[in-house]
Amino acid sequence: MSPQPSRPGAARGTEVTVAVCQIAPRVGDTAGNRQRIRGAVEAAVERGAHVVVLPELAGTGYVFTDAEELRAAAQPPDGDTVREWEALAARHDLVIVGGFAERGGDGRIHNAAALADPTGLRATYRKAHLWNGEKTWGFSPGDTPPPVVDTVYGRIGFMVCYDLEFPEWVRLAALDGADLLCAPVNWPLSPRPDGERPGEIVRAQANASVNRMFLAVADRTGVERGQDWLGGSVIVDADGYPVTPLRLGQEAVLTATLDLAEARNKAISERNDVHADRRPALYARHSRERA
Amino acid sequence: MSPQPSRPGAARGTEVTVAVCQIAPRVGDTAGNRQRIRGAVEAAVERGAHVVVLPELAGTGYVFTDAEELRAAAQPPDGDTVREWEALAARHDLVIVGGFAERGGDGRIHNAAALADPTGLRATYRKAHLWNGEKTWGFSPGDTPPPVVDTVYGRIGFMVCYDLEFPEWVRLAALDGADLLCAPVNWPLSPRPDGERPGEIVRAQANASVNRMFLAVADRTGVERGQDWLGGSVIVDADGYPVTPLRLGQEAVLTATLDLAEARNKAISERNDVHADRRPALYARHSRERA
Repeated sequence: MSPQPSRPGAARGTEVTVAVCQIAPRVGDTAGNRQRIRGAVEAAVERGAHVVVLPELAGTGYVFTDAEELRAAAQPPDGDTVREWEALAARHDLVIVGGFAERGGDGRIHNAAALADPTGLRATYRKAHLWNGEKTWGFSPGDTPPPVVDTVYGRIGFMVCYDLEFPEWVRLAALDGADLLCAPVNWPLSPRPDGERPGEIVRAQANASVNRMFLAVADRTGVERGQDWLGGSVIVDADGYPVTPLRLGQEAVLTATLDLAEARNKAISERNDVHADRRPALYARHSRERA
Repeated sequence: MSPQPSRPGAARGTEVTVAVCQIAPRVGDTAGNRQRIRGAVEAAVERGAHVVVLPELAGTGYVFTDAEELRAAAQPPDGDTVREWEALAARHDLVIVGGFAERGGDGRIHNAAALADPTGLRATYRKAHLWNGEKTWGFSPGDTPPPVVDTVYGRIGFMVCYDLEFPEWVRLAALDGADLLCAPVNWPLSPRPDGERPGEIVRAQANASVNRMFLAVADRTGVERGQDWLGGSVIVDADGYPVTPLRLGQEAVLTATLDLAEARNKAISERNDVHADRRPALYARHSRERA
């Protein structure tokens, strides 16, 4: 998707300040979660943010007990949760990308994300690759590719958490022209060797560099019903290196100012271009043989 | 490709010692390069190696002046270079994967790699994604996917250097059942932020973990005709973490003992599997739309 810029008349600078909000939502505490989000967005605004990314399922929390609890918490895209993001985006002249539990028109529940800008809700997306318990709590996987929205701050794609582990999926957003890929995530804390950067961050770096695209990942933190979260929010530049410090396990709002125009240049040597050098006919032919 | 195991009667342990040989070949010094390779293979054998990986264009060096110099150095797969690898593999009961400049039957020149085991030459491969000068020195890109050879030490896939930067290409080898992906490379030294691991290694880690597959990268080192090389050889486990120390810029033979059977288990949670969770119909459909 590449709708028109929301403010086509506006001067379009390419330097954009992006914030990732590492908050600690709690299942069942809708009012509290809303307050946490508002607080984080306001902190991001104070630090000059133009684009604000919230975690996966920011409004509801994550660790549901069963399908009934999830269903009760889910909302349509015009419910209170996303409406408030639209209001915050309008009030502060922001793009906000965040994750929410969506109740679709057909009654199915999705692990979704929304992008709101000062003109309102621009796009929603339904997580296509479901993680573990999501398969038993009654989430239905989405089956449309990550949106790429042409905003006044640049072309912004988005997807949710485990989607990032599939480089094919990230590639679709990049080929659709995303300068910045925003990812609401909830990364479970898992063991890793001493001194190693968490693998989820390593893969975010790779996703950025093989596409020469910026990535902004908003992870959650805190312990929720016995589940400990990584708190690994990170902003990665188009060369694949982190430009924010790690604040593992802490509540934090991390910001970085990015020149998104760098993502329009896919050249990595005199004669190499990370997208033009792809050989999609070979990938497709051999994938079909193996399907 | 999945030919039969070369020694189907042999007991098939899954613990395998893999060596990556970080040597410094020099263009024009064929005899010296052969000696460097022999020395590194023998050092690997002393350390118990079963699988030995050599750099890209190990026999010839890399920095050619022009097509004429490359053409003079290139050999068919039954030339001296690969023949010697076959002899070393037979003498020491090894699998050897290394890069060489191939002169094909049709006269075209390829940046190729060969896999030899004690029974002889098992497979060759031609780099499908060419880097910078390779496009002007007269290399022709290959157009067949990375081979996966069922050896007595496990299923071994291989590809060359810049190929690794295309996760679609790595995926083909993984879906074809590679337990271990071997990559002869020549990584040019390029700038990176202080304290950061080189991006090439980060992407090798990501390639391993999104496929739960081991990776063994043999990089070259030294300065050749003014080109400084990274010397970033690394062996990565199926979780995507390095299991060898970095010896940036030094000659070194690095080894690690791997339980390749771990790569047969693609599960990463009770209900998640890195390959079964893929949604190839969505990737293909949307890729075609964008082709």
